[in-house]
Amino acid sequence: MNKASTGFYFEDFALGQVLEHAIPRTITEADTSLYLALTGSRFSLYCNQDFAQQLGYSKQPVDNFLLFQIAFGKTVNDISLNAVANLGYAEVEFIEPFFVGDTISVVSEVIGLKENSNGKTGIVYVHSKAVNQEGYQVLSWKRWVMVNKRQEGMHNTFAVEPQLNSMVPLGSVSIPQQLSITSYDTRLSGENYRLNDYKVGEWIDHIDGLTIDHAEHTIATKLYQNNAKVHFNQHQMASGKHQQRLVYGGHIISLCRTISHNGLANAQWLAAINGGSHLNPSFAGDTIYAATQVLQCQELGAGVGALRLRTLGYKNSSWNELKPQYDKALAEKSRLPSNFVLDLDYTVLIPV
Amino acid sequence: MNKASTGFYFEDFALGQVLEHAIPRTITEADTSLYLALTGSRFSLYCNQDFAQQLGYSKQPVDNFLLFQIAFGKTVNDISLNAVANLGYAEVEFIEPFFVGDTISVVSEVIGLKENSNGKTGIVYVHSKAVNQEGYQVLSWKRWVMVNKRQEGMHNTFAVEPQLNSMVPLGSVSIPQQLSITSYDTRLSGENYRLNDYKVGEWIDHIDGLTIDHAEHTIATKLYQNNAKVHFNQHQMASGKHQQRLVYGGHIISLCRTISHNGLANAQWLAAINGGSHLNPSFAGDTIYAATQVLQCQELGAGVGALRLRTLGYKNSSWNELKPQYDKALAEKSRLPSNFVLDLDYTVLIPV
Amino acid sequence: MNKASTGFYFEDFALGQVLEHAIPRTITEADTSLYLALTGSRFSLYCNQDFAQQLGYSKQPVDNFLLFQIAFGKTVNDISLNAVANLGYAEVEFIEPFFVGDTISVVSEVIGLKENSNGKTGIVYVHSKAVNQEGYQVLSWKRWVMVNKRQEGMHNTFAVEPQLNSMVPLGSVSIPQQLSITSYDTRLSGENYRLNDYKVGEWIDHIDGLTIDHAEHTIATKLYQNNAKVHFNQHQMASGKHQQRLVYGGHIISLCRTISHNGLANAQWLAAINGGSHLNPSFAGDTIYAATQVLQCQELGAGVGALRLRTLGYKNSSWNELKPQYDKALAEKSRLPSNFVLDLDYTVLIPV
Repeated sequence: MNKASTGFYFEDFALGQVLEHAIPRTITEADTSLYLALTGSRFSLYCNQDFAQQLGYSKQPVDNFLLFQIAFGKTVNDISLNAVANLGYAEVEFIEPFFVGDTISVVSEVIGLKENSNGKTGIVYVHSKAVNQEGYQVLSWKRWVMVNKRQEGMHNTFAVEPQLNSMVPLGSVSIPQQLSITSYDTRLSGENYRLNDYKVGEWIDHIDGLTIDHAEHTIATKLYQNNAKVHFNQHQMASGKHQQRLVYGGHIISLCRTISHNGLANAQWLAAINGGSHLNPSFAGDTIYAATQVLQCQELGAGVGALRLRTLGYKNSSWNELKPQYDKALAEKSRLPSNFVLDLDYTVLIPV
Repeated sequence: MNKASTGFYFEDFALGQVLEHAIPRTITEADTSLYLALTGSRFSLYCNQDFAQQLGYSKQPVDNFLLFQIAFGKTVNDISLNAVANLGYAEVEFIEPFFVGDTISVVSEVIGLKENSNGKTGIVYVHSKAVNQEGYQVLSWKRWVMVNKRQEGMHNTFAVEPQLNSMVPLGSVSIPQQLSITSYDTRLSGENYRLNDYKVGEWIDHIDGLTIDHAEHTIATKLYQNNAKVHFNQHQMASGKHQQRLVYGGHIISLCRTISHNGLANAQWLAAINGGSHLNPSFAGDTIYAATQVLQCQELGAGVGALRLRTLGYKNSSWNELKPQYDKALAEKSRLPSNFVLDLDYTVLIPV
Repeated sequence: MNKASTGFYFEDFALGQVLEHAIPRTITEADTSLYLALTGSRFSLYCNQDFAQQLGYSKQPVDNFLLFQIAFGKTVNDISLNAVANLGYAEVEFIEPFFVGDTISVVSEVIGLKENSNGKTGIVYVHSKAVNQEGYQVLSWKRWVMVNKRQEGMHNTFAVEPQLNSMVPLGSVSIPQQLSITSYDTRLSGENYRLNDYKVGEWIDHIDGLTIDHAEHTIATKLYQNNAKVHFNQHQMASGKHQQRLVYGGHIISLCRTISHNGLANAQWLAAINGGSHLNPSFAGDTIYAATQVLQCQELGAGVGALRLRTLGYKNSSWNELKPQYDKALAEKSRLPSNFVLDLDYTVLIPV
């Protein structure tokens, strides 16, 4: 018997099964600098200690996008090592700020299972919770993923699909206890726009494009200790459908977040991801762009506002070219063109 | 109105205009390790705590080359997002040592403006000053950059070209107050050469070559939060003159500095950049080399010496091949061949 | 006279010669995070502070694989700048744990010299010792390397070949004084296998493959301040045998270690490298795999066990394909096929 694991297949999951993911991780200051260097993030809260302290934090918190990548990475070995595709996220809630030196552990529960009619794959739904070293829950999310079967054929399990909320209501997102936004200085953050400058329905073309290179996306994905084979093994991928490695979808999320700084520089705090899906794969050499539509705006009190945003990531094209295609696809309820790679519905905190 | 900014064009600048650059940055120990890893720097002052303490520093200071890259990066969004070319630097003075945990803020003043006769571009001269979180000035520099016009045509502004000093006099460069060079140990630094071993006019062929790769230069440039489009957007650059991304000129400066360790290992402290220009663009795949001519040598007292150096960066060639071409171009006052990418005139402190 | 050094040639070495390597290095937390990001390491002892403390360490120690890379890097400028090939390692002993903030210095003694009959090269044997800032020896190793001669021809030196032990006896490897393995938690480390689950002769196919990219291996090698030209200079390498840069062999060791986590997740502590050789060069684009044979198992007391392992690194192939070729080569005492890149015999500590 070979001691190396080939990962779980669809048959290995059972409803209600609890997976304590191994290799809890202490997040270092260096992890946060590396994240900045790999993504090019320019949000002030994560790179300026004085700015963080003006907002009531003792020091810069860990960017929730980085926290999500590392927490997600913990679950890969048990859940998605044999995944065909990450189908979606829902109810991603950031509950407590996480700081350098804290250690994250993740546990997942299987909350849904559904065979696909092709007999080759099934869908696994999990609810994952991340806690810090003191046991406080810092992050909770649900995702569903298409997993290969060990053996082809229908297994006649009951299909259980969980009810997933389409969003975390704006009024119930967690506001960091220490957050004191009244002294927020837009000269430091880079833009003047506050909550009430955004209008529901408004689109922001973030303009800037970032080209992905191989070592960049693989170093980022290794930083997250995400060991999914599709990102790392060219020898194996060469004989597959795309004949090349796929860029980790989470890296696309982070690049779109970086790009969104141009127009959303004050949307400092990720409070929730209401839903997300990776529409098409990305490859090294692709140039990623993003455009965002404002879905909701709400004052939460004490100067804090919440913006619900829909950011579309796309590649190798301009928003001017793609917007009409997007509108047409929406009107016809047809599929978006293959330039679209990400559809992310999320909620950020922003000063009023 | 799209909320994302397209950056300033020539018409947006006015003489005397003051630009407070956003996103002050706390420099972390990790930023310094990343700089070492991305450039391969081997200067002892920045990687050996004991060595730094022997020289009077409480701990390793931040390498002034890294400090310059980050400070420069702060100015890009306001000054050179639509730049055609960085034309030059002058009077770059490093005033106070900068340490890990310090936060840098940068302000620039427009000190010169000049339209080009083609009606498409103009030259913007700025004086930038960087301060730490206590308001002490740590760095001051001037640069001029060719910026696109929003609208073609002559605007008939008065041309104002500032008088720029050709150098910071060797006797007036800042010597770090804590610097105590008498116990300098050349066994630790890697070479025996001290101030008086260098002769004015002497050339050093630094021999070693470093090939640039895509993810390396883009990660370095993102580390500096420099968001100039030309380094990152292959989709856009593909239709331009070079059909590919350009390597950030500052990365070339850092690579030449690394390469110069072989022959200048004791030139630990960058005191000033007297002038610099990027002679030709570099691309991923280019191999960078450097050769240095000693321009001036001066004892500053207390065992500290200053060397004024001219480092030429060139690519894909050897100094043996290029030196005759360099001499010929100098004699004929003609343009240097396109292998030359950098001409940097700078002053370093070195033990006597 | 050019001040830049071209490195030592075979003629520059003398038996008994002591080389104090320059540029001692303070290892930072960031170096350890970078190592994780560049290699994808998932061993818990190095990324989980709580786990490290449960094992008796005050905090995460520096991974001995990283320590070896940095210590090795210190010796390159004096020993292997003009090396044709790293021929082998022996008696690599890790004596004391090394922690973030410690500074490493390395001294080597020439213990053997032997001319090759071609008159062009010779073999240099060195014994290198690394100490921390308090003078405690942390690491000791021997290696031999083929070095170019400055001038072709036989020099008629006496050939001195040192007696090298084929291994560090399992019973005499250093056990970190603080190590308290009784509370070892396999749920955190990712696998259940302890010493007695491994059988002598057993093979582990580690399954996972990691494709090497240019910026990844060059950034890693620069992190180690290893300045061997063959890894960095495409302009020069283009006209050589392989027409491209070679991946630093140490990076292959680290990648194989990462890959070996799948099946050896509890082999946390590298105690010794008994012998190692780089069988063939690796290049960017190669996908690295590994398989391990268990050579010896021994209880050392206090719940600590030692496993002597032989890890074979190979590229662009599967173990199923290569195992028969390996067995055939072993039976026929013939050369392994060129897919094999590494043969590493080493001893790790693992809970009983």
